[in-house]
Amino acid sequence: MPSNAIREQLAAFQGLESNLFQKDFLLTWEHPAEQIDAIVTLAETFKRLHQEGYSYRAFDTGLAISIFRDNSTRTRFSFASAASALGLSLADLDEQKSQVAHGETVRETANMISFLTEVIGIRDDMFLGEGNSYMREVGDALTDGARQGVLHRRPSIVNLQCDIDHPTQSLADLAWLKTHFGSLEALKGKKIAMTWAYSPSYGKPLSVPQGIIGLMTRFGMNVSLAHPEGYGLIPDVIDVAKKNAKETGGSFEAVTSMEAAFKDADVVYPKSWAPYQVMQRRTDLLKVSDKDGLKALEKECLANNAKFTSWECDRKKMNLTKGGKALYMHCLPADITDVSCKAGEVSAEVFEQYRIATYQEAAYKPFIISALMFLERIQDPKAKLAAIVERARSLSL
Amino acid sequence: MPSNAIREQLAAFQGLESNLFQKDFLLTWEHPAEQIDAIVTLAETFKRLHQEGYSYRAFDTGLAISIFRDNSTRTRFSFASAASALGLSLADLDEQKSQVAHGETVRETANMISFLTEVIGIRDDMFLGEGNSYMREVGDALTDGARQGVLHRRPSIVNLQCDIDHPTQSLADLAWLKTHFGSLEALKGKKIAMTWAYSPSYGKPLSVPQGIIGLMTRFGMNVSLAHPEGYGLIPDVIDVAKKNAKETGGSFEAVTSMEAAFKDADVVYPKSWAPYQVMQRRTDLLKVSDKDGLKALEKECLANNAKFTSWECDRKKMNLTKGGKALYMHCLPADITDVSCKAGEVSAEVFEQYRIATYQEAAYKPFIISALMFLERIQDPKAKLAAIVERARSLSL
Amino acid sequence: MPSNAIREQLAAFQGLESNLFQKDFLLTWEHPAEQIDAIVTLAETFKRLHQEGYSYRAFDTGLAISIFRDNSTRTRFSFASAASALGLSLADLDEQKSQVAHGETVRETANMISFLTEVIGIRDDMFLGEGNSYMREVGDALTDGARQGVLHRRPSIVNLQCDIDHPTQSLADLAWLKTHFGSLEALKGKKIAMTWAYSPSYGKPLSVPQGIIGLMTRFGMNVSLAHPEGYGLIPDVIDVAKKNAKETGGSFEAVTSMEAAFKDADVVYPKSWAPYQVMQRRTDLLKVSDKDGLKALEKECLANNAKFTSWECDRKKMNLTKGGKALYMHCLPADITDVSCKAGEVSAEVFEQYRIATYQEAAYKPFIISALMFLERIQDPKAKLAAIVERARSLSL
Repeated sequence: MPSNAIREQLAAFQGLESNLFQKDFLLTWEHPAEQIDAIVTLAETFKRLHQEGYSYRAFDTGLAISIFRDNSTRTRFSFASAASALGLSLADLDEQKSQVAHGETVRETANMISFLTEVIGIRDDMFLGEGNSYMREVGDALTDGARQGVLHRRPSIVNLQCDIDHPTQSLADLAWLKTHFGSLEALKGKKIAMTWAYSPSYGKPLSVPQGIIGLMTRFGMNVSLAHPEGYGLIPDVIDVAKKNAKETGGSFEAVTSMEAAFKDADVVYPKSWAPYQVMQRRTDLLKVSDKDGLKALEKECLANNAKFTSWECDRKKMNLTKGGKALYMHCLPADITDVSCKAGEVSAEVFEQYRIATYQEAAYKPFIISALMFLERIQDPKAKLAAIVERARSLSL
Repeated sequence: MPSNAIREQLAAFQGLESNLFQKDFLLTWEHPAEQIDAIVTLAETFKRLHQEGYSYRAFDTGLAISIFRDNSTRTRFSFASAASALGLSLADLDEQKSQVAHGETVRETANMISFLTEVIGIRDDMFLGEGNSYMREVGDALTDGARQGVLHRRPSIVNLQCDIDHPTQSLADLAWLKTHFGSLEALKGKKIAMTWAYSPSYGKPLSVPQGIIGLMTRFGMNVSLAHPEGYGLIPDVIDVAKKNAKETGGSFEAVTSMEAAFKDADVVYPKSWAPYQVMQRRTDLLKVSDKDGLKALEKECLANNAKFTSWECDRKKMNLTKGGKALYMHCLPADITDVSCKAGEVSAEVFEQYRIATYQEAAYKPFIISALMFLERIQDPKAKLAAIVERARSLSL
Repeated sequence: MPSNAIREQLAAFQGLESNLFQKDFLLTWEHPAEQIDAIVTLAETFKRLHQEGYSYRAFDTGLAISIFRDNSTRTRFSFASAASALGLSLADLDEQKSQVAHGETVRETANMISFLTEVIGIRDDMFLGEGNSYMREVGDALTDGARQGVLHRRPSIVNLQCDIDHPTQSLADLAWLKTHFGSLEALKGKKIAMTWAYSPSYGKPLSVPQGIIGLMTRFGMNVSLAHPEGYGLIPDVIDVAKKNAKETGGSFEAVTSMEAAFKDADVVYPKSWAPYQVMQRRTDLLKVSDKDGLKALEKECLANNAKFTSWECDRKKMNLTKGGKALYMHCLPADITDVSCKAGEVSAEVFEQYRIATYQEAAYKPFIISALMFLERIQDPKAKLAAIVERARSLSL
């Protein structure tokens, strides 16, 4: 028998309008807060059903296709887990083995793989200005295919990380914050420090910090963004964060030291990323396959990074946070000083203290992806979820 | 509630004997016309069920294995979609990761992968004289394994393209023609031009044109094959086409210009392929890994191709067809002039006019593969399809 | 309607305690004989259900993850088949495509892939002293993740071959011997010759012979191990075999010629492996990527192997066995003289005589893996199996 907790989650979900049916999910700020709330509430319900041993399968058959244009472990397995849990078969479009590289247009390929497909998950975060555009290009092709009667139903797209946003990460982070603080309402007035941190690597996407400032400003949080000079994010996303903060009664500020951001913070999210301008230069060099140029850029960038090794989340900086007890967050894997590298984003001691917390944060991702798939594909998600909970009731031993 | 259209398709299927149970499907001309009709009718029924939102799942568990010895996108996803829709799990035999290359014989491997396998789909179209033979070798091994009690049930093979035929393509094409003209009977007396077209690549398989002339001559069509001198198909398949035409009241002719083939045609299928003799020389060179020989052959072949850049399907040639309105077909991807190459098989204008039509043509493939799997594995397909339609009735909301 | 044979197997299973729920299966000798008996009996029941056309699906959804750190065909497909038959979705962790190589620790990755995972199958047989340790490291991470509340349920591990044991192989071998001789009791007093055989390759793992001597000594067999000087197995496993033999009334002896081992044997298992010391040196060289050292070692080892080409299982040696009719076994693929190599483990004539028998031996592996997955994950396997057999009854036509 499903617990009372599940029935309360179901009731909460029934009170929310998700309106995601047959749509894509590309950027969190394109979707109203109530929809975000519905996604998180549904993810929590799925998580609880799984925890109590109940299946939340919703499909009899169908394909979930993943397209990974960059390496991935956790998102790849989150997507595979979400597909399996809902009853979809996973198929990966490996661009090495396909003919995509041999002259096929995106427009054509998008239709060719979609005749019996429910969901397409795409990671494309390597080129600034391209990943999100690629997803929209695929989406336009699918819309056209459905309109022309080629596709019986248009598959929906889930953004598994692009150059602008990493919504399945930021939504999992939001679900974790909701659990940690008790409710979305409880996030109001809480301070989160999204700060750059030193890493001995270069070229990390900007989509995680952009996703965080773009989403957390929706829930009345006080978002403090910190990075060294020259490590700015995409200006448009900064504008989104400012606008959000104004509308929801939270705040957004940009500061120039990790210490300033950490001051009295309830949550800290120290993470490395490449400077916006560097990513743009890198994108140009990658396009023309200029290997010497790329090497020179990497050298220059690492040398520049090295000026900021002090941007490490250590005990001393953690002591600046509210009561010295801020929640540490990371999308993982973190560059941990003396563990995975000589000097990194976080000291071994701080990371170890919060290691299990970061795992719990990550645990929401497969359920967030499940929720997105479900809401994008099920016409009446309230009735369907009620039926799943009801089914669990009769299956109980 | 399934529509009347579905119930009419079911009734049509009930009137046909398929006789494919526990058999393979390697060449369309090895199977009687009634069987072809049953396959197409079943594919249409599955397509309609999917269109109306009903599952046609037929298996609780089981494996569908794919073996791709050449790159593929559309056929790979058609096979994956068909397996998923029927309830089978997909497993790909990646010969890079397996031990096949390390001395295992085909006889042994075929059995080792088949203990719980329902269907094996194979693409092997690189070597003339080898792909189809390989499929038969696998089939013989499976027959022996089942006879000896090693396999509880012998899996069935679906030819996903070999050196001789590409039956899932030609059957999808046939289903599309049936839809386009209203019935298989309506194909009688219609003229189809299967013609070579220029492409700036070389080594494309002969199996598509061979599949088309081998299948469309079965249904009373007037098949006109055109290609430059030296670009002939396998002589045995030409004989099959001639024999078919004689038996079904259609006709088969070989002409030497695209214009002659297009004259008054109802359907045109302009597509590049390598000359038979070149494919034979290429096969010999590939066998001994003669890289210099292969380069020289490619150069020679591309130079020869270049004499025939005028073999492009353009507006002027389309105007020669019946009323200037023939249906343009292609297995995709097409080499489109000024889009995917400088000069190709088809002008951008003609392709764009028929682009959606080629997508609709392709849309039949996953359902054709579903139909083949179903008929090869289900002992009483009439009863099973009736049960699936009945189940759809009770599932309707 | 399931046959009486199935109902007898069910009754036999009901009489056995398996006690594998939520545990791993890494080495056969860590598990009591009754558990081994339960695994084999369940595998036989699943095999018979499949033979009679019944599904033994036990899960609605869930992931089975495979991690192959070495090439594999038969074990890969056995694992995929077992997962599919039980209703689990397969996901392969391809360490090339993931970020595992980029600084992630095993501890973290193990948790990240496991949120909705039921079973993790691991093959890691390349490095002596490492494969089994790696599996335990993964297991410890999962135990910790479950204890900390990160994982709702700890996935179970199936050893798909490590440096010490190859339990799914030896259990399949045991099931085959049970079938061949009629019962596990009938194995008492039977002589099995586990002997080294010549192969023109080097570096083959020791886990198959170790698995055989570690398991067959559990059932009162007289195990005779033969190999040339210098080709010894891991001493600890020899001790296990000796101890087992003492406890079960069987015997264990090490002899120095294939002939001595074959003398009056009921079963022979001639198979090549690398010397223990060579594997240790190889492991050290691999760790530091010493290519020249590896080449030199290979040359030295092949030269040493070549002294023992007479260690071939041929007719003459088979004539030494009991009545000249011992059962020949092999895990496949075998190095067959004049078939897959000039001189190998077995003559073509002997192999061909027993070819089908080796296929039947291999046929047990997917069902053994199914049984392990089922017992590791199902809380009340007796009730669940009874329900599966009952379901088959009502499904019968």
